[in-house]
This record gives sequence, structure tokens and C-alpha cells, in this order.
Amino acid sequence: MDFSVPDATRALCGRVRAFLDEEIVPLEPTFLGAGWRAVLPPLEAARERVKALGLWAPQLPRAWGGMGLALRDFALVGRELGRSPLGHFACNCQAPDAGNMELLLEHGSEEQRERWLGPLARGAMRSCFAMTEPERPGSNPAWLATTARRDGDGWVLDGRKWFASSADGAALAVVAAVTDPEAPPHGRATLFLVPTDTPGFRLLRNVPVMGHAGEGWPSHGEVELAGCRVPAAGVLGGAAGIGRGFALAQARLGPGRIHHCMRWLGICERALEMLCRRAAGRELAPGEPLAGKQLVQAWIADSRAEIDAATLLVLRAAWAIDTAGARAARGEVSLIKFYVARVLGRVLDRAIQAHGALGLTDDTPLAWFWRSERAARIYDGPDEVHQGVVARAELARHGFDPPR
Amino acid sequence: MDFSVPDATRALCGRVRAFLDEEIVPLEPTFLGAGWRAVLPPLEAARERVKALGLWAPQLPRAWGGMGLALRDFALVGRELGRSPLGHFACNCQAPDAGNMELLLEHGSEEQRERWLGPLARGAMRSCFAMTEPERPGSNPAWLATTARRDGDGWVLDGRKWFASSADGAALAVVAAVTDPEAPPHGRATLFLVPTDTPGFRLLRNVPVMGHAGEGWPSHGEVELAGCRVPAAGVLGGAAGIGRGFALAQARLGPGRIHHCMRWLGICERALEMLCRRAAGRELAPGEPLAGKQLVQAWIADSRAEIDAATLLVLRAAWAIDTAGARAARGEVSLIKFYVARVLGRVLDRAIQAHGALGLTDDTPLAWFWRSERAARIYDGPDEVHQGVVARAELARHGFDPPR
Amino acid sequence: MDFSVPDATRALCGRVRAFLDEEIVPLEPTFLGAGWRAVLPPLEAARERVKALGLWAPQLPRAWGGMGLALRDFALVGRELGRSPLGHFACNCQAPDAGNMELLLEHGSEEQRERWLGPLARGAMRSCFAMTEPERPGSNPAWLATTARRDGDGWVLDGRKWFASSADGAALAVVAAVTDPEAPPHGRATLFLVPTDTPGFRLLRNVPVMGHAGEGWPSHGEVELAGCRVPAAGVLGGAAGIGRGFALAQARLGPGRIHHCMRWLGICERALEMLCRRAAGRELAPGEPLAGKQLVQAWIADSRAEIDAATLLVLRAAWAIDTAGARAARGEVSLIKFYVARVLGRVLDRAIQAHGALGLTDDTPLAWFWRSERAARIYDGPDEVHQGVVARAELARHGFDPPR
Amino acid sequence: MDFSVPDATRALCGRVRAFLDEEIVPLEPTFLGAGWRAVLPPLEAARERVKALGLWAPQLPRAWGGMGLALRDFALVGRELGRSPLGHFACNCQAPDAGNMELLLEHGSEEQRERWLGPLARGAMRSCFAMTEPERPGSNPAWLATTARRDGDGWVLDGRKWFASSADGAALAVVAAVTDPEAPPHGRATLFLVPTDTPGFRLLRNVPVMGHAGEGWPSHGEVELAGCRVPAAGVLGGAAGIGRGFALAQARLGPGRIHHCMRWLGICERALEMLCRRAAGRELAPGEPLAGKQLVQAWIADSRAEIDAATLLVLRAAWAIDTAGARAARGEVSLIKFYVARVLGRVLDRAIQAHGALGLTDDTPLAWFWRSERAARIYDGPDEVHQGVVARAELARHGFDPPR
Repeated sequence: MDFSVPDATRALCGRVRAFLDEEIVPLEPTFLGAGWRAVLPPLEAARERVKALGLWAPQLPRAWGGMGLALRDFALVGRELGRSPLGHFACNCQAPDAGNMELLLEHGSEEQRERWLGPLARGAMRSCFAMTEPERPGSNPAWLATTARRDGDGWVLDGRKWFASSADGAALAVVAAVTDPEAPPHGRATLFLVPTDTPGFRLLRNVPVMGHAGEGWPSHGEVELAGCRVPAAGVLGGAAGIGRGFALAQARLGPGRIHHCMRWLGICERALEMLCRRAAGRELAPGEPLAGKQLVQAWIADSRAEIDAATLLVLRAAWAIDTAGARAARGEVSLIKFYVARVLGRVLDRAIQAHGALGLTDDTPLAWFWRSERAARIYDGPDEVHQGVVARAELARHGFDPPR
Repeated sequence: MDFSVPDATRALCGRVRAFLDEEIVPLEPTFLGAGWRAVLPPLEAARERVKALGLWAPQLPRAWGGMGLALRDFALVGRELGRSPLGHFACNCQAPDAGNMELLLEHGSEEQRERWLGPLARGAMRSCFAMTEPERPGSNPAWLATTARRDGDGWVLDGRKWFASSADGAALAVVAAVTDPEAPPHGRATLFLVPTDTPGFRLLRNVPVMGHAGEGWPSHGEVELAGCRVPAAGVLGGAAGIGRGFALAQARLGPGRIHHCMRWLGICERALEMLCRRAAGRELAPGEPLAGKQLVQAWIADSRAEIDAATLLVLRAAWAIDTAGARAARGEVSLIKFYVARVLGRVLDRAIQAHGALGLTDDTPLAWFWRSERAARIYDGPDEVHQGVVARAELARHGFDPPR
Repeated sequence: MDFSVPDATRALCGRVRAFLDEEIVPLEPTFLGAGWRAVLPPLEAARERVKALGLWAPQLPRAWGGMGLALRDFALVGRELGRSPLGHFACNCQAPDAGNMELLLEHGSEEQRERWLGPLARGAMRSCFAMTEPERPGSNPAWLATTARRDGDGWVLDGRKWFASSADGAALAVVAAVTDPEAPPHGRATLFLVPTDTPGFRLLRNVPVMGHAGEGWPSHGEVELAGCRVPAAGVLGGAAGIGRGFALAQARLGPGRIHHCMRWLGICERALEMLCRRAAGRELAPGEPLAGKQLVQAWIADSRAEIDAATLLVLRAAWAIDTAGARAARGEVSLIKFYVARVLGRVLDRAIQAHGALGLTDDTPLAWFWRSERAARIYDGPDEVHQGVVARAELARHGFDPPR
Repeated sequence: MDFSVPDATRALCGRVRAFLDEEIVPLEPTFLGAGWRAVLPPLEAARERVKALGLWAPQLPRAWGGMGLALRDFALVGRELGRSPLGHFACNCQAPDAGNMELLLEHGSEEQRERWLGPLARGAMRSCFAMTEPERPGSNPAWLATTARRDGDGWVLDGRKWFASSADGAALAVVAAVTDPEAPPHGRATLFLVPTDTPGFRLLRNVPVMGHAGEGWPSHGEVELAGCRVPAAGVLGGAAGIGRGFALAQARLGPGRIHHCMRWLGICERALEMLCRRAAGRELAPGEPLAGKQLVQAWIADSRAEIDAATLLVLRAAWAIDTAGARAARGEVSLIKFYVARVLGRVLDRAIQAHGALGLTDDTPLAWFWRSERAARIYDGPDEVHQGVVARAELARHGFDPPR
């Protein structure tokens, strides 16, 4: 057991932190006040400086232009980036592109990688992941209504997806569709690489979420697939990928949950820091700072305890994936998914309460986090599903196999 | 002790409920999707039907065109109206106008009533209440930076306010300003009736809150007062009102908190109903409804228990105000303020979780409630202040007087 | 709606409170330090004074020597009595005797009443209720292992019971046993009146609970029934009572849960009063009382809010039973059962924390309440069962009938 | 960062676990049912086998007969021992002796070590620590009423202590007394080594705690010091120790809190294991195990998450003390003190609830843990004090120094 962070990692995190504070945080008011389109030009410029600084795509192998970090190092970098809503995008490790790049890297054919992974890795293209459906529960990813039927040597896709995040402006959609409804549940679906200009693929709307339809990267598309024809070469993983959609999606989610959790912990650190600054700087009466209030001190202490606890759990899960593989770490990943999402909710709530009316405004990023991250307890599996996974794993340690 | 609701009140609530479901709820998508300006025309038309139905201004005396309900009856009507974000406005009992009308009714001179109360009661004008300041804590309303200095037989106001809700489009602002900084803390401020077209009164912006600056009634103004001259007749309550700003503001808040609490409970009932419908109608797998899940059942049961508990507390406080007066019921009002606001937060959280991704979208009103009512634990005094009031009252019952 | 307590009830509660403070509370150190046997003689003497004061058996009809109170009045008296672990016994309205008396009163034959109800009502005898079984879940009272098979014109009972509270020293046991295993689940059991000196009825032990086996009234017996012969006249309710054991037990539990809840609220009031006294009287440093701490104030405020909320819910349920009957109020009774038990746990926890080390000792009754009332969330149905009942009732209001 | 447990440590923990399961757990019914005196003979016999197995005094240096473990290894061993109430005593690393041994080892004179540390290390003697006073808050250890005035070359002690745990049967008491009331608060007290047969030292009673006065090691003494004369050689640390009582007590508490936390986590692991076994083995109806209930699964998952989080925090604190010293790790130690104590409370609560009535009985150790470990949130500093320490440390990281 060794809880020390290696010097090199620590130095790297410091560089990321400095870059974020100097170049990305100042862009937040534009993003929060004027929206994605307004912030994109300076953000693209910042991305160029990221490349120059050698901080581009920390999760990608060096061969693809990235930093080639181990998961546990990327986790720490991701926490720094999470302090700003724009951090991950600045370094081209944002969802859903990061997950799609990982899929292509590990399961794409050479042709698929060349066509899609290259531009994605360079930040020249965006993509989306279309799995969730409005009429089917996201908590049961084996039960999809979208179908792909064989048509000659290709496939024809029909169905409807939503929460295809970042579909607006994406060139590529990774689409999950049932190719064999008679197969065992986890063998029914396949992932398809669908150019968004394919006839029959249509972005119906950006779903309005918490008051905003969003635009561009920060948006959640509702997509119709109507007789959308995809060639055989569009199956992710080629012929071997047929029926493996569920497995590939799950494999994508393991490290993805580490990314999300560390991003949330970056938000938590930002919020706690804001809470402390507010508490120290705000007077309730002349000479009486908010920080002197015992309830505020309890909020600070509880937040620090919960954040540290959550951070150690996530780093342990990252370490487990690095050393034992994603499959072996499945229980630990489910555990952090629900645990950290809850910590996030509580820390944000305390930070807002300490800010009073200011915490409700868009003059700080707290309200953005509050609106956009209520989703954390829902996406990639709601808390209740992950609790069930952890409980069954624990029961199995004692030799029991409960009914679902 | 008698927990029965009188038949007449029950029938009235039924009429309100039917009207709301038929005419107001259908306007919600327009409001949530296209905003205030878009919904205003049909909403104004609905207001005319409200008048025709005899449901106008339930809180106002009949002499002013209202229904003249006792507080505990209005409380029950307010719960029905709270089920929609547009309910109170439809019946002209929305904050902040309702509170301002009450102030004018009880403390305005005859001239003040004629000029302002008449149009407000008819729904021909809107108003705002400008007390909170960006640089001073709302939790300490005795400590204001805005000043009013005598100038001839009038006053000149200087300062900055924010969260002057509904200032955008208001004709009247009720402004709190310090008239005697040397007086004891609770005798320093005075309330002024300031026409918003007075020179020196300027709406700087609608403060962006939870992603939206809003417009018209659902907005929160930041206001500058710069050499804003108000005649002697602009003092609420006339000469006797000088130095009574804190007392009048507090008197306004007592019944106002009953209104807010019952509105929140209307939201809670709506959310719980939506939770139940979702739970019963959504399948996790073929033939397996969400409602069969024990955690969902626990959410429903806990919500029902907390809502009923909160409702009884609020009705008891309304009854106490009706029978013993607002001053005697001060502890009970503080108690419901923090208690019900927390119930609201928990019930909304459960309803959203049960809706999954849908609960995050603007396809239901849950996201609106989530965004706009995080404020409930802050406005009109944060939880922590009200907890202190209740604790000191409880200690006083045992003969103790703790330091603040 | 009227939240006022009638003057006569208020005066009665005052008399009960005064008696309790003067005569019963002073007996607590003997009970907590030396046990039941030591406190019984002075407690019996106090019972005589209770009779003289006209406070005997508030729940019983006057014809049986009681006060004949309506449920909602008894509820308020029960709250006063609940302030001491000995209060209910002092007035002969303690569990399980009160419930057994109610059963006999409503369902006993004339002969059964004469033989058992008379001495119980006079306080000359004690009884127990033997339903829970070690090997079967108390949460499923329709599933019992104890059987009664016909034998001539009588019955022979075999099985094992535990948590037959107060069996030690009881002359009568009300025993639930399956008389028809083939009947629908809720029609299988019958209640038998079994004299504890019947051959085959054996008190195996007082089950050690939270460190004490207890003795006499405050104890929980484990009982063996081995070929225990009961005549036909021993069936509660006579021939009509056969197969009605579940129904009678449930009927007994409705008002019984009101009694428990109000007793718990008496404990809560006592604990909160102790918390306040401690907070006001204890200094953390010279001149710095504990009551000045914001966290302690939050504990006081939250406790007051939760206690008042719980009290109103229970009184409403009592009013519902008084006006609409126990069956109609079933959902409300389940609701208070789990809600109030949780409030009790939280209030006790805060009171102990405020007392520091003293709160752990037997120098106050807090530790007794802590040890003996953890059971509140378990007996008469665990929280989770009652949550399910409330959820299903709520879903039914919207027309849905979820799977259990 | 490396979360792996070294093979040697893992093997050692396995040996401890096996010993505990085979030899100590079987003694629990005797302890819980018949008390300390009854279990002492077989427990002393087990201690001999502990020595033979080389598992004696894991926290002591080899020179004193111990295993010489680093703190982080002892932490893991302590978790195993914590699974039983008798585990630490069996290995002679029980409080308060372990802390007293540590004090003597690090600060005792050679003579003091020889006289006291030798027999303590061999398990031939017991000791107690007398600091807490009934009339002064334990949360303010700088404010003591017990005094030691110089008398010739010795001292005379007067005062009263309680929660001098294990005073019953102890040969040595380490007593904190004020030697210089005029010194700065943290320099007023001194620790004295007082043989319990010193005239004027009197054990007044074992304080009844949660229903039991206890006896021998598991007891909490109230002690009177009345003109109790201690020679100069009785000052811990010799002349240099005068006025250092607070500092030494704090130094004792740092690692002591690691010990407590890991012991609590052992209790948690035991409770969770029991919860799982109960859930898997108990049927609510034929073929319907408790483990299939979603709420029970949520309890299991939440418990596993919280236990793992707490464990990592404690191990990190132990690692920090090992590598940076106790002073530098002060914030981390305060953090785990309140965080882990709360986890303990929640996990025990869930385990009891899952056991139903059985969980309340002494047929399992859950009730013992429930009764005896409510103290965890109070002793060695209540939660609220440690939250304050953590909050101030966090604020200091941002450059602020809040009023206490």
C-alpha cells in the first residue's frame, strides 16, 4: 500500500491545473452566458495551445497523438479537467468522443480506425453514441427496440434514440441495434458506425434538458433511424462484432465510469473551494464571517471527508482496472458509479446553500453543475442498478446468488 | 381537534383543480418550451375565465375583487394552484404581487391604495419587491447598504438590489432603504413605493438564474437606485411608516411563507402523482413495471408521509395565524419554512430519479421545478436562519435564552 | 379543520403530567439501577393512587373501570405517559395487556370476559401475546409454524413462540396457531386463550435483549407449546373466531400502533426537553453554553419540526379511526408506524449526542430508550413492510395495483 | 499509488482471522451471556495460545515481546481483531492498555518502563486512563477541574474522573491533572502514573452504561482522587513532562484513533457478513429469500461502499502517520474519527434491521455492538469537534483562519 502520487504525475496535474485556471476558467462566463457557439472559437484556440503544451488527449496512445497515460494517471488529470465544464473538451478527452475513440482503438478494423479514429483523435471531428431509447429503460440495455435487419450484404436500421449526446454537429454516430432478437438477451445487439449524413439518419431535435436544448457538443440529440442503410463494413469490429453490441458497450463503460467519477470529483473540488472562499469572504454582520458558523464548518468537513473517500475509491478502481482488467473490477466500478454521484449531489448542494442567492445565479458555475449533473445519478446506469450489482457481488462472496 | 376539510372548501378546491388541469396545465409546454412572452396571451385569456369562474384573487377581500378566503382556506386553494408553475399567476395571487397587495391593503394610505392596489388587484399591473442586496446577506435583513436620505420633503435613494423578482415589466417597486443608520438595527429601514419609471431607478439586468435570465414575471431583476427621488407620499404607511421597514417586511413574510409552503406542497403532490404514474406505466422488462421495485415503493411511501406531515404543519400554522395572529405564530412559520422546503427537495429528487432520463428533460415540468425551486431553501430566509429561530423558541420554553 | 385541543383534554393531560413527574419519574432510578422486581412495590403503590386520582385505564370503558376516552384523547394522554418507561404500566394501559383487553372486550365471549378481562382491567393479572416465531418472519404473519389440531372438542397446540412480551409472570397467553393450513393464507390461524399453567405451555427463557433478559413485565418470553391442550372454550371469539386469527391480530394492531406512536412521541418530548436543558446548562468553556452551538440548535429545531409533524400525523390517524373506523385508516396507520419510529430514532440520537458521555450512562433514561426502542422499527411490522402498504395504497389512488 | 496489500501482511491477517474464528468467536456467547468474569479463564488460556502463535501485542516492538508492526500493518490486523468484542484483548492490544503502553514506551523513564511497561506488555497487569471528568466537557480537554499541587518533592491530586475505562482491576492509572492553572490552556495539565492502591485513589463505581455497570476490563470507572499523594517519580516523562499532559494525551490519541477506526471497521465487516448470511438464509415466504428484496440489496451495497471508503481513508491516515508523523496527519485523523464512527452506526443499524427481532437479542453480537459503540461518536472527541478541526484545516488551505 502506497498512497503517494508519483512526482511526475503530480507535476503533470499541476501543469494541467495551471492551464485550466489561466485559459479555460476565464472562458466560462462566455459559455454560461452566451452559449456553446460563442465559446467555441476561443476554445478551439485554447485547444491548439493544449497541443503545443503536450496535454492533448491524455487517454490516447502516443501513436494516435495522445499522452498514453495509464488509467490511474489519467484519472488524476481528469479530476483537474473536471473543475471546469470545458476542461475535458479542451484536451479532447470529452465524452462521448473519448469512449468512441476507445471503442475504435480496441475493436475497430484498420479501415474503421483510419476513417474515424484519425480525425477524432486530431479533434477535427465529433461523434455521438446512440443507445438509449425513449420507450425503453436505459437500466436494461439488453432490451432495445431499434432493429437492424440484413439487406443484401448490408443492414437497414430502424428505431428511435435519444440522449445521443453531442449528436448535433457530429459526423459519426455509434448506434446500437438488435440484429438477432432470438439470441440470448446479451447477444442480441450490434454496434454500427453510422455517418450522420446517411439517408434515413435524422437528428429530430436537441432534447431540452433542464431548460436548454443546448447546441453542438453540450446537447442531447433525439435521433430517428428510418430505413437507414449501413454497409457490412459499418459493423464495429467487423463480422466478429455482430451480436457483441452489449459486450462492447459495457467494455466502453468501465473506464468511462472512471472518467465520469474523476470529472465529478473535479467538480466537487471546485465547489468545495468555492464554498471555502465564500465562507471566508462573506460577512453575515460586520466582523462575523460565514466561516465561523458551525453548520458551515460541518458542510466543509463532511464534504472533505466524502470527497477524499470517493477519490480513494475511484483511484482504487482505476488501479484495479490497470492491474486486473475491467472485467475483474466490475463490482468496484459499479460501486463508485453510485457512490460518487451521490457525493457530487451533496457537495454541490452545500456549496449552493453557502452561496445563498448567488449560488442560484449563472454568475458562478455552481448552477450549471447543479442543472447538468443531476443526470449523474441516472446516466450510465441509475444508482439502483449499480447498487444491485454490488449487492449481488457481495452476496456471491458469501456463496449466495440472489434472484435479481 | 378536527382534521376534516369543510365541504365548501373541498368543493372549491375541486373547481380550482379542474380549471387548472383543463386550462393551465395545457399551457405548460408553451411556457417551458417557448417562454413567458409566448405563454402570456393564452394565459391572459385564461385569467379572464378565472374571473368569470369567480376564482380570482382568492387572498383578497371581496371589496377589492377577491374571494375573501381565510388563510387556511386559501392555503388549500394555493396547494392546488401550486401544481402548475402558472397556477398562481392565473388567479392573480402570485408572488411578489400578492405580498405587495397585502402590504398596501394593510398599511397603505388611501391614496396609495387607490393608485397601486386597484390596478394590481385587477391584474392590470405588476410589481416587485426590492430588498435583497448583492453585497449583503439576505439572512440579515437588518443590515442593508441602500440608503434614503431626506431631501426637502422627499427622499433620495441610492443603492443596489437584486432578486427583485418580476421587476422586468413591473410598474411599481417596493424598495427597502435605510433611513436612520443610527437607530437600533430593526428600526433603520423604511419601505418606499417607487414607480419604476422614476429617474434614477434602473433595471440593470434580469439575473441569469439556473441557466435563464427569464423575462417578465418569471425573472429576477438587478436594480440600481442612483439619486432616485421619491416624494414623502412614497413612504409606505406614510409618516408612521418611517423606520418600520423591517417590521412591515416581516409582517409580509408570515402569510407569504404559508403561501410558498402550500405552493411547494402542490408541486410535491404533482411530482408524487407523476412518480406513481411513471412507476405504474413504465416497464423495466416485459411485464415488470417499475412500481414493483421495492426502492420505488419506498420513495412513494416516504414522499406520501413527508408530504402529509408537511401539509399538516402548514395548515396548523395557517390556523394559528388565523386564530392567534402572525406574531404569535412566528415560531411555527419558521418551522414550516425550512421543513417544507426540504421535503420539496426530496420529493422532486425521487420523482426525477423514477423518470430516468425523461425526468431531466423539459418534456415534463419536473426539471423546471428542480431548477427553480432549489431556491426554496434560500429565499425568505435560508434554512439555517429558521432553524435558529425555532431552536431559540424551544429553548425559551424551558426558560433559556441562548446567545445567537 | 381545528387544531385546538379541547380544554378538558388539556386539563386531563396536565394532571397526568403532574402525576408522572411527581410519582413515576422518581421511580426511574430504581427501575434502571435495580430492575423490575425492585421497582414493583412502589409502582404498585403508585397504581393505587392512580385509581384514586381517576386516571386508571384511560383506554377502557367506564363499565370496566376505565376512563372511556376516545382514541384521540387517549392518544394525548398516552404521550404524557410515554415520557417515562413506567408511565403506561402505572395507569394499566401498557402493552401487551391493553391490546389483549381490547381483544377480549370486542371479541371475547361473556365467559371469557369475566374470567380474563375482569382481573386484567383491575390490574390484578398480567397477560402476553404469543404470535411471533423464531423461525418465521414476523413481517409475514400469515405464515406460522405453530399448529392447533382438533382433539375431541378441544385443540392441541404445538410450536414455539418468542418475543411473547411479558410472558414472565403472565397468567394468560393469547396464542396464534394455524388451525387450517389449507385455507387461504389469511384464514389459516386462530387465536387461543391459554392459561400459562396449562400442561405443555412452558416459558423457556426470557430472551436476552440488548444485554438484559429482563424480568416480569419488561421481558420477552420464548415459549414452547408441546401437546398443549386447550378446550373449545379457549378459542377467542368462540366458534366464530376459528380462522380469524389474522384478522383479529390486525384489528388489535391498528389502535395499538396509535398507542405505540404516541408513547414514542412522549419519549421524544422527554428527550428533546433533556436536550434543551443539557444544552442550556452545560458549558463548553467558561461562559460558553452548549446551546450557543449552531449544530445543537439545528438538532433542537429539526427535532421540534419532526416531533410536531409526527404528532399531527398520529392525531390525524386517531381521528380517522374514531370517525371512519380502523379498516379505512389502515394506510394512515402504516404511515405513522414507520414515520414515527424513525423520528424517535433520530431524536434519541441527537439527545444522546448532546449529553456526551452522560448520555451513554444509566444516570439518565436516554440509554434505556436507546436500547429498548431500537425495536420500534421492527415490532408490529418492520418499516419496509409498512412502506409497501403505503406505496400500494398510493398507487391504488391512481388506479394501479403493483405486484407485491 | 499502490492499493495492494503485501503478501506477508495478507498472510498474517489470514492467520489472525483463523485464530479469531476458531478460538475467540466461540467465547462470545459466554461473554455476552455470563459476563467478563465467566469468560476470563478461557480467554486467558487463549492468550497463551496467542503468544505461542506469535500473534501477541502486534503494536509493541519486538524488544518488548510484540510483533513490531508498522502502523498500517497493525491497522489491518486490528480490523481482523475488531470482528469480535474480545479480539483485541486476546492479543493484548486492547484500549486503554495499548495507549498507556505507547505512552510509557515513548515518554516513560527507564524506571517507569520497567515497573509498568514490563507487566503490561506481558499481559500480567491492567491499567486505566483517567482524564474525562463528569463536570467538564470531554470535548475541551484543556479545561480540567482535577488539580495536582506540589507537596514537598511530590504532588497531591484532588478531583473526580469518570469513564476511566477498565479501572476495575487495574493496577495503574494514568491521571491527567492541572499543575499550573495560570499557564496557557494547553500547558496546564500533567500526566501522573498513579498506582491504584495509593491512599486517596478510590474507584467509586463502575458507571452503568447502556444497562450494565460491567466489570473488569469492559467497564468504565468513576474515580475519586482525594488528597492522593504521588511522588515526583510519578510524573510521566519526569520533570520534562510537567505541563505536557495535553500534548502527551493528544499524541496518544493519534494512533489510538487509527486503532479504534480499524476496530470499528472490523465490526462493520462482521455485521455486513452477518447481514448477507441472514439475507441469503432467511425466507419471507417459501422460496422468497430476504436477499431478493431491493431495499436489502441497497443496504448491502451502501454498506460495502461506505466500509470500503472508510477503510481506504483510515489506511491513508495510517500511511500518513507512518511516513510523515502524527502531527502532520492530524487533520486526516480527525476526519476518519467522525467519518468512520458514522459508517459504523449506519452499518450496524442495517444489520440489525435485516435480522428483525433476532438482531435485538443477545443471541448475536449485534446488540452488544449497538449498545457499546454508540459511544464511538462521542469518545476521543465528539463528531462535532473533529468536524471543526477538519473545516479549519480546509479553510487554512485557502489561507483563512476562522474563529473557533
